[in-house]
Parts: sequence; structure tokens; C-alpha cells
Amino acid sequence: MDLPREFVCPGAKDVIELLSGTFAERLSVAAAVREQHGRDESWHAVCAPDAVVFAQSTDEVAAVVRACAEHQVPVVPFGAGTSLEGHVAAVSGGIAIDMSGMNRVKRVSAEDMDCTVEAGLTRKTLNENLRDTGLFMPVDPGADATIGGMVSTRASGTNAVRYGTIRENVLGLRAVMPDGRIVDTGGRARKSAAGYDLTHLLIGAEGTLGVITEVTLRLHGIPEAISAATCSFETVDDAVASVIETIQSGIPIARIELLDDVMVKACNAYSKLSLPEKPMLFLEFHGSQNGVAEQAERVSEITLANGGSEFQWSADPEDRTRLWEARHNAYYAAIALVPGKRGFTTDVCVPVSKLAEVIAQTRLDVGESGLTAPLVGHVGDGNFHLIVLVDPADSQEMAGAKALHERLVVRAIEAGGTCTGEHGIGMGKRHFLLKEHGDAVPVMTAIKQALDPQGIMNPGKMLPD
Amino acid sequence: MDLPREFVCPGAKDVIELLSGTFAERLSVAAAVREQHGRDESWHAVCAPDAVVFAQSTDEVAAVVRACAEHQVPVVPFGAGTSLEGHVAAVSGGIAIDMSGMNRVKRVSAEDMDCTVEAGLTRKTLNENLRDTGLFMPVDPGADATIGGMVSTRASGTNAVRYGTIRENVLGLRAVMPDGRIVDTGGRARKSAAGYDLTHLLIGAEGTLGVITEVTLRLHGIPEAISAATCSFETVDDAVASVIETIQSGIPIARIELLDDVMVKACNAYSKLSLPEKPMLFLEFHGSQNGVAEQAERVSEITLANGGSEFQWSADPEDRTRLWEARHNAYYAAIALVPGKRGFTTDVCVPVSKLAEVIAQTRLDVGESGLTAPLVGHVGDGNFHLIVLVDPADSQEMAGAKALHERLVVRAIEAGGTCTGEHGIGMGKRHFLLKEHGDAVPVMTAIKQALDPQGIMNPGKMLPD
Repeated sequence: MDLPREFVCPGAKDVIELLSGTFAERLSVAAAVREQHGRDESWHAVCAPDAVVFAQSTDEVAAVVRACAEHQVPVVPFGAGTSLEGHVAAVSGGIAIDMSGMNRVKRVSAEDMDCTVEAGLTRKTLNENLRDTGLFMPVDPGADATIGGMVSTRASGTNAVRYGTIRENVLGLRAVMPDGRIVDTGGRARKSAAGYDLTHLLIGAEGTLGVITEVTLRLHGIPEAISAATCSFETVDDAVASVIETIQSGIPIARIELLDDVMVKACNAYSKLSLPEKPMLFLEFHGSQNGVAEQAERVSEITLANGGSEFQWSADPEDRTRLWEARHNAYYAAIALVPGKRGFTTDVCVPVSKLAEVIAQTRLDVGESGLTAPLVGHVGDGNFHLIVLVDPADSQEMAGAKALHERLVVRAIEAGGTCTGEHGIGMGKRHFLLKEHGDAVPVMTAIKQALDPQGIMNPGKMLPD
Repeated sequence: MDLPREFVCPGAKDVIELLSGTFAERLSVAAAVREQHGRDESWHAVCAPDAVVFAQSTDEVAAVVRACAEHQVPVVPFGAGTSLEGHVAAVSGGIAIDMSGMNRVKRVSAEDMDCTVEAGLTRKTLNENLRDTGLFMPVDPGADATIGGMVSTRASGTNAVRYGTIRENVLGLRAVMPDGRIVDTGGRARKSAAGYDLTHLLIGAEGTLGVITEVTLRLHGIPEAISAATCSFETVDDAVASVIETIQSGIPIARIELLDDVMVKACNAYSKLSLPEKPMLFLEFHGSQNGVAEQAERVSEITLANGGSEFQWSADPEDRTRLWEARHNAYYAAIALVPGKRGFTTDVCVPVSKLAEVIAQTRLDVGESGLTAPLVGHVGDGNFHLIVLVDPADSQEMAGAKALHERLVVRAIEAGGTCTGEHGIGMGKRHFLLKEHGDAVPVMTAIKQALDPQGIMNPGKMLPD
């Protein structure tokens, strides 16, 4: 193997030599492979690791972590690279562990509605595997992320309003801790009161406390009936008012997604649709035939009263798939609006009662900023994104985007909300963590120091320096 | 104030002197008060603290913890004393903080279906407060525990099969950490991906990482229709088979509780009912009028096919209340079966698919043990309790109960389950923690040492020495 001329982390050389015998061609130092593993889908700069190891088992992950711990070399877990906050950037070099080879479904129990999978399995592949069981894993962040990546960033997405986020759908984890120890954090019981909740400590820890290698997930029955519709509005306010009333009525809607007019236009262009280019809700109802009809009727009463259009139904599964694919591709559609731009994505989440006010102020702010920033969101949870189009090399544009983001986050936190509903802190929001959590941050730091005293696990992420 | 002649923890004297000015008559060293705060409802021995402080604010709790930290004196939070694993026993003396004065509802948002309450509020008082809002807090461990106590033991109860445990119903906490620092672990957003999940770390930590002083809770709409029924069976196996089929059918039943014949007999005697003294399910359905009728019909098809009786409906609210009060008093009913006995309670939880086998083996084992041990459980979650009647002074009986418990726990863990579904580890199950969590226990210990290096927070609980 030809080693790179320079290492970002000098100790990486020793680790590579230590591991090359075991991993052979599954350890790569090729520039292209390293580059690919140092970037996600965001605007954050590429930070290539010194080497990439393609792991195939928990024991292999443990061997890599032990070698890195011995030489104080950073470890950066890599799933599908679909993060939006620079989580996979190897800011201090070190070894990226590519988890994509750990993609087995180890066990499915239809009786218990649960399964255990390796962390490198993607959510779409899991659901293809489950199809014959009548069950599905509902958490759906849009991108075809790995389960381990979703767990590590506390992901959610369109279905969370009904089925919860990944946080509510994990029963237990297997993880390699920073000293190479392998731990199982939970069993298969639906509930347990035994010991500290290490499962939830690792969910959303962004790889800074260990590498998740296996996940035991709750599954849900595929509903007897599913129907999807769109509903357009003259103003975003009217759409938001409809969402708030729907949630407050306790209607168990499965999906209720807001797109502003700019976002709808972007989706039309990118996904070849012909939706009216107005603020719009994408809706989905799950239940029995009667239940779905009843829910749809109640929601349509609400939307009509708020000036919404008649529902445009996507009756057959293919239509429905096309609609949700367009929604899932909203990020790509947004960045395709202006060729050459990257997406600077915001991710606040506020109590639903504050949603109308926060969105209205934010849209005014976008207008004044002169930036293009379509809005899309899982508004049933109070979560929405601006996708601010930026050229990362244009410092003025970046400064404008960052200032807009700063104001948005302050607004959200003042409303009782959070700087990130589902994307995580990563590199991009570290300074917001202190603003949001204040005196709780030193507690987080104490935990990090206790479990990873050398600071080798995904350094430069989440916790402020 | 007359100080006790001897202190279990010598440093307590200094703390009492330090605090007596501030707390005056709200600091007690009276033997009766100390005794009362050193015991819960279980068989565990009374361990009185050296003093009891009646706190009225988070700042007061922080002052007590700071004083205790300075003098390395144990702090034991005390809610309603309804724990079943000796959580409130001051095994090393120190200061008990009685939270019952912190019982205010600080905020209710009907729009967001959430509220913030002080930790000393009991669940029944909360629900009385909420009545006019059309909302309720569903987690219901039977006893009228405080919200803080429920959070600390990761409590659940009869409604968890539909509404989740307390773990799924807490949005954020305010807590005093072992150094006296006050932290807020979460805001009011429905979801957040910002930082380590300290909320879930403190849920179920049994007071060993800090004192919870405020809780922000999710609330749920009081259902339009509620109906409750009982259904009796010839055998426990038939009842359990009905439960498993109900859960596997995805019917959103609100409560499905199993009582064996001995337990029904105890409830009849204690709560003056005349239920047939056979294995029995207590059922409750929540939803719209149609939804409830549909659910009940589907479940009754299942129970009839498994040899169950026709449903006996508790139509009006008073009947229903009487039924559930009897269920909630099952523990007291059990110990009243043999006057003078205490309850040695077990609490395993297993995947539902293993429930029939684990219960059948357990009942055989009880039969062979010669002990009286009625069985009752939240079987929809796979959770059940034996209430083994013991005289703690009878060493042979205690040895038999402990051996029975040991075999039950091993059986549950081998089935993928847990030694405690909802009561916690406390004093009683510390040796099981290692059996269940193995290599994860040192990770828990590292967290404990990082956050409470002096080991002052509720010592002698949860973690093995």
C-alpha cells in the first residue's frame, strides 16, 4: 500500500500499519476514497480522513477503535454520508469507519414487531426486507440514510408526527465504546427500568461516545389503508393555521408537511410535477378504511375553513410514491434552483403554538436578507427548514446566511424550541449548543470526558471546544 | 433543635447546622419524621436519614445539595415513598429532601398539550388540575406517586401499552446536579437533536445523578369514549394467549391487565367485589364511540376464541373507577391476604412472544416453592409481577422468595427481557444489573463517577458496589 505523503493525524500511520494485515484491501488510503468519506451533503468543507476502513463486524469495529485508542487517533463513523451538519468530516484526520458493509438484517420478529439490524443498513433496504412481514420502520428522514446514522443524529422526518422519531423507535443498541469495549445497551423488552439509559445517551451522540454497530428497532404494522393528498393555500399563514388546528384536534395524521411557494416551484422543476405554485400542505392518512376517511374529512373541514383548496388526492400507490419522492427530494430540488449553489440548511423546532409566529417572522427576515431560501418542514412537530442557497466561497453570502440562521435560532429558543429538530449539532451548530443548553453543557462535557478521555471519537463535533 | 445523639453520617451534623437557619421548622431531626422518610412500601428495612428537609423551590434543593457536597453527606430525594425497591432508604444516613411541598403546576398549554410541574406534585393531583382542559397525563403506576418519583424510577403502569411509559412522556427536566448546579435538560419542542439526551439519562437514574425538581410533560386528550370490561378464563394460558393475539393484531387497546385466580380472590376480599375467582383480564378501550366499539368487538372475538367469558362491562364511570381502584390496590390486596406479611415484589418484562412460556414456567415454580405469590401484570407490555408474601424476619421464607426471584429474573433475561419493567433497581436488584447489562455497567459507573465523584447522591442504590 502506498501511504499518503502527509497525515493530518501523525499517529494514523501506526494505526494503518497495525490494521493493514487484517483489513487488506478493505483499508484504503486512496485520495478519492478518503475525500468521499470526508464530506456529507452540506456546504461544510471536506475534511478527508487519513484512511478509510470498511468494517464487516462489530469485532472489526472494536479492533479499529482499540488500535486508534492505543495511538490517540480520531475515529469517525461513516454511514451513507447524508448528514447535513458535517458529521463525517475528519477535522483532525484519523480513521473513518465505513459501515456500509454491515448491512445485514439479523433478526425480525413479526410477533414482537421488532428487529435487530446492523448499523450500516439503509432504511429503504430495511423496509424492502420487511415487505413480506406486513411491518415497516416508519422513521423517514428523506435521504436513504443508514440506521446507525439516523440513530446517531436522532433523525426523524415526515412520519414522526404519528410514529415518533428514531428516539422513540429504538429498543436497544450494540456499540463499541471509545476504549474498544463492546456493550449492549438494551434488550428486547418493550420497557425496562434497569440502570442508566445508555440507549438514549448514544442516540443523538453523533459518534462522539462510541460507534453504534447494531440496532434493535420497534416496527409498526403497515396500515390497512393509506391515502395522500395535497392542499394549496393563498398564504403560508393559512397553511400553518390548518396544521396547528389539526394537531390540536388530536387527529392522528401520519404526515403533514408544509412547502412554501418557492419550494413548490423547485419541486415542480426538479421532480417534473405540475403543482400550483402556492404554499402547500402534503398530507397522508394511515388507518382502517373508515379511519382514514374520517381523518381526511376532519382535516379537510379545517383546511377549507382556513382558505385551503379542495384536496388533490394521490389515489394509487404510484402517484403517492411520486408525491413523496418529490418531498424527499426537496433539498436537492432547492439546490438545483440556482446551479452551483450548496444548501445551507436550518432546522429549528418550536412548540406548535408558536409555529405561525416564528414562521411569519422568519419569512420576513428571509425577504429582507435578499437570499433565496425555500421553506419546507415537518410542521406537525413544529419543525421546519430553510434551505438557504449559498456559494461557500462567497464570504458575503455566507455571512448573510449565518446571520439569518443566528436570528432564526434565537427566535426559536426564545419560543421554547431548539436549534435542531433532527439534523443534529455536528460542526455547524456547536456555538448554538451553549445558547440552548447553558449550564447543561458542562454536564455533557463531563460525560464525554468520562467515556472518551482521549477525545478520539469524532472530534470537533457537537460539544464546543 | 435537639440533635440526635448519633449520626449515621457524622458530617450530617455540620450540614444541619448550616441549613437550620434557612429552613427553620422545615428541617426536622425528629425520630418519627426520619423513620417515615427512610421506608417505602416494600419489605426493605427502614434506613432513616439523619435529617429531613422540606424543600419548596429548586433553589432550596440546590442549597441543600451544595451543603451536602461540601461536607460529603448523602442526599436522598423523597417523593411520596411509594417505591417498591427501597429507593428512599438512607443506607448511609445523610439528608432526605422531602419534595412534597414542591407541588405546583407551573404552566399548562392546552394548545401544545404539555405542562410543566414541580416534581413533588402527585399524578392524581395533576390530573385533577387538568380536568377542565380536556387533557390528562396517562402514566399511571397505581400508587399516587409524585411525578419526580415516577420519572426517577422510569415508572409506567396500566396505560403504558397505549400511551407509553413516563420515558415517552417527558419533554424536559430541571434538576439539581451533585455539585448543586441547576440544569434544564430540554425545552418544549416535541423533538430535538441538540446535544446528549440528559433528559433520558436522568429518567430512571433513581436520584443517583441529581435531584429532579421540575418536569415538562406531554399530555394527551381525554378520549371521547372510554369503556372498560373484565373477561375471565379457565386458565392463565388462555388469558395470556388472548393478550398476545390482541397486541399482535395492532389493536390500540388502552389497558389490558392480567390477574391470576389468587389475585382476583385477594381483590374481591380487599375491594369488596364479587368477580369470578378465575384468571381474568381487565380491559379498557379509548377512542371515538365507533373506534371503541370496533376495538372491543375485535378483542372479544379473540378472547372468545381462547375460551374467555363474555365481557362484563363497567358501563358508567363509577363502576369503571371501582374496577380500576381494585386493580390499583392489587398490591395492598395481596399483602392483606395474610395479615402481617410484607410484599416481595418481582417485576420482569419480556418480549410478548415469550410471555406465555415465561408465565407458565413461573407459575410452576411458584407452586413448587410453597409460597403464596399472586400474579398481576401489565401483560400488553410483557410486564408482570409476582407479589410474594413474606415475613422479612423469617429467614427461610426470605431465602425462598429470593431464590424464586433469582430464577424468574434469569428466565426473563434469557428470554431477551429485563429484571425490572417499571420498579427500578433500587436496593433490591443491584446484583441483577450486572447479570442483565454486563459490560455496560462499567459505562454506567463511569458516568456516575464523572457526575457525582463524591458518591453523595442516593448512595447504595442501582449500581453494584
